[in-house]
Amino acid sequence: MANETVITVVGNLTDAPELRFTAGGQAVAKFRIASTPRTFDKQAQEYKDGEPLFLACNIWRDAAEHVAESLDRGSRVIVQGRLRQRSYETREGEKRTVYELEVDEIGPSLRYATAKVQRMNRSGGSGAQQQSSGSGGGNFDDPWATQGAQPTRGFGGQQQASNDTEPPF
Amino acid sequence: MANETVITVVGNLTDAPELRFTAGGQAVAKFRIASTPRTFDKQAQEYKDGEPLFLACNIWRDAAEHVAESLDRGSRVIVQGRLRQRSYETREGEKRTVYELEVDEIGPSLRYATAKVQRMNRSGGSGAQQQSSGSGGGNFDDPWATQGAQPTRGFGGQQQASNDTEPPF
Amino acid sequence: MANETVITVVGNLTDAPELRFTAGGQAVAKFRIASTPRTFDKQAQEYKDGEPLFLACNIWRDAAEHVAESLDRGSRVIVQGRLRQRSYETREGEKRTVYELEVDEIGPSLRYATAKVQRMNRSGGSGAQQQSSGSGGGNFDDPWATQGAQPTRGFGGQQQASNDTEPPF
Amino acid sequence: MANETVITVVGNLTDAPELRFTAGGQAVAKFRIASTPRTFDKQAQEYKDGEPLFLACNIWRDAAEHVAESLDRGSRVIVQGRLRQRSYETREGEKRTVYELEVDEIGPSLRYATAKVQRMNRSGGSGAQQQSSGSGGGNFDDPWATQGAQPTRGFGGQQQASNDTEPPF
Repeated sequence: MANETVITVVGNLTDAPELRFTAGGQAVAKFRIASTPRTFDKQAQEYKDGEPLFLACNIWRDAAEHVAESLDRGSRVIVQGRLRQRSYETREGEKRTVYELEVDEIGPSLRYATAKVQRMNRSGGSGAQQQSSGSGGGNFDDPWATQGAQPTRGFGGQQQASNDTEPPF
Repeated sequence: MANETVITVVGNLTDAPELRFTAGGQAVAKFRIASTPRTFDKQAQEYKDGEPLFLACNIWRDAAEHVAESLDRGSRVIVQGRLRQRSYETREGEKRTVYELEVDEIGPSLRYATAKVQRMNRSGGSGAQQQSSGSGGGNFDDPWATQGAQPTRGFGGQQQASNDTEPPF
Repeated sequence: MANETVITVVGNLTDAPELRFTAGGQAVAKFRIASTPRTFDKQAQEYKDGEPLFLACNIWRDAAEHVAESLDRGSRVIVQGRLRQRSYETREGEKRTVYELEVDEIGPSLRYATAKVQRMNRSGGSGAQQQSSGSGGGNFDDPWATQGAQPTRGFGGQQQASNDTEPPF
Repeated sequence: MANETVITVVGNLTDAPELRFTAGGQAVAKFRIASTPRTFDKQAQEYKDGEPLFLACNIWRDAAEHVAESLDRGSRVIVQGRLRQRSYETREGEKRTVYELEVDEIGPSLRYATAKVQRMNRSGGSGAQQQSSGSGGGNFDDPWATQGAQPTRGFGGQQQASNDTEPPF
């Protein structure tokens, strides 16, 4: 994929990541990041929080499972991915547009935390296949679109029941 | 401002930039960029366009006037700015969220074009003031918010009448 | 190419771009950018320049010619490209490493300047081919490496004779 | 600090991070990242590694200690920081230039690994102070410059004796 808008965001997860599997067995995790800028208020002589930026994120395959196991609501992360736009219609027939981040790399920030890292060797896929996994999102059936899809609970108990009646993100 | 989400986007202007002035005389230009990713379709053995990403952009002060003079509908640009989110209510009372780019740097792409560049020395402000101009957007009155605001036509005739009845961007 | 380090730099050309052609007729331009950060000195209550960052840049094909025609020493630009490292040996047999930017997009900054943009339709190559031109740098013969290569003067007279005895950049 | 070149790099630590303390008691960790791009070789129909990009990294204060505790040789990380250039003279009087990354955020990549994250509340400094810690590097005495500086071993035993006779990095 050429000419994609690759961006890096630092922020906190607004909820525990939600893990699902496509009919074909592909793992995908979704979560939302809040990134809050801070301005120095010259009069008050202190930093003040600006308006947070919220971004819906998707991550695929093994990395999706790693995210579900490792991150929780409030986790501060550093994320790199491709900014995308998706249009859909509400049940009232109104057209809406959402921005999403197709995540390629994510890690828990070590600014205010430590991490015990454990390398995984899950699917045995070649690195080359894993490398391009994110881009192939469109080739899979969409686990978020189907009504019958069951959210799968995470490995570390971080998952919460999701409300499927809301529009995507 | 710390911890802002600074991103770079390459794309094309969907329309000529629209230039206005705040009550205090500050110039501000708004425009929209469409950035279209391209995938290599292995079966067809050719590149295909993906879904475009649209981003509303604001730029302030002298740079706003330079943009209005230099760019037009379709211009391919490279833009760096801070990704922001803004919420508003429709007349029906529904809450909507838009993403905007507060532009810090923009230039016409030289990939498919040449450019005759002319340095300007407009406002005589010190470099330091110009440097931080973008961040101070919040300090000005908002020319897009006021009903009475008059869109100012650009210097090169690229401006078009804007329709103020639509929601912001 | 996956997992490349794509970066955006804003700075000024330290010299006019230098344009050459490979034996196969491919245009390539090289130039150097100086990007100077600025700190706010609280005691002096003013902005002060930090140490500049210098980056050697390469750009290929049509865009190389557009750069040579459009930019000059001192031009402020916004550049996006892939950060790379290249090792070489000096005549004394010492190993040195240089960092280079393989430029994908560049434009003259409109912060302090206006630009008259003219679309070009030079080589008639399809967009798809142009899109991936930068990545293919390694496939061409290297016009900088050969002693006999002749620097080609730019279209606007911005080019200067280059001294080929110096190490690359 | 305005107009800095903020970049994101994904790569692997070439060695365990090295932790030191300034005379004033500030922690600083240094490490090197290797980022290896991969090209798809059309003839061989497989991905091949390109030339790796190496970048020396510094991180300050609490985050430095978190890095020393959490990361090891080979750890895959995602890093955001400000690209800088520093010049120095060798003992033979030759001028050399190195590029460094002043790291603002770093996390272990969850692409091939999981992580057990633990929030820390080490120094009790206000967030505002921590936020700007990296930028203040120049205000501290430089623990890498002094001959007598003692490398401090990390918390998890990841540290190795460093050879202080080599030029910085």
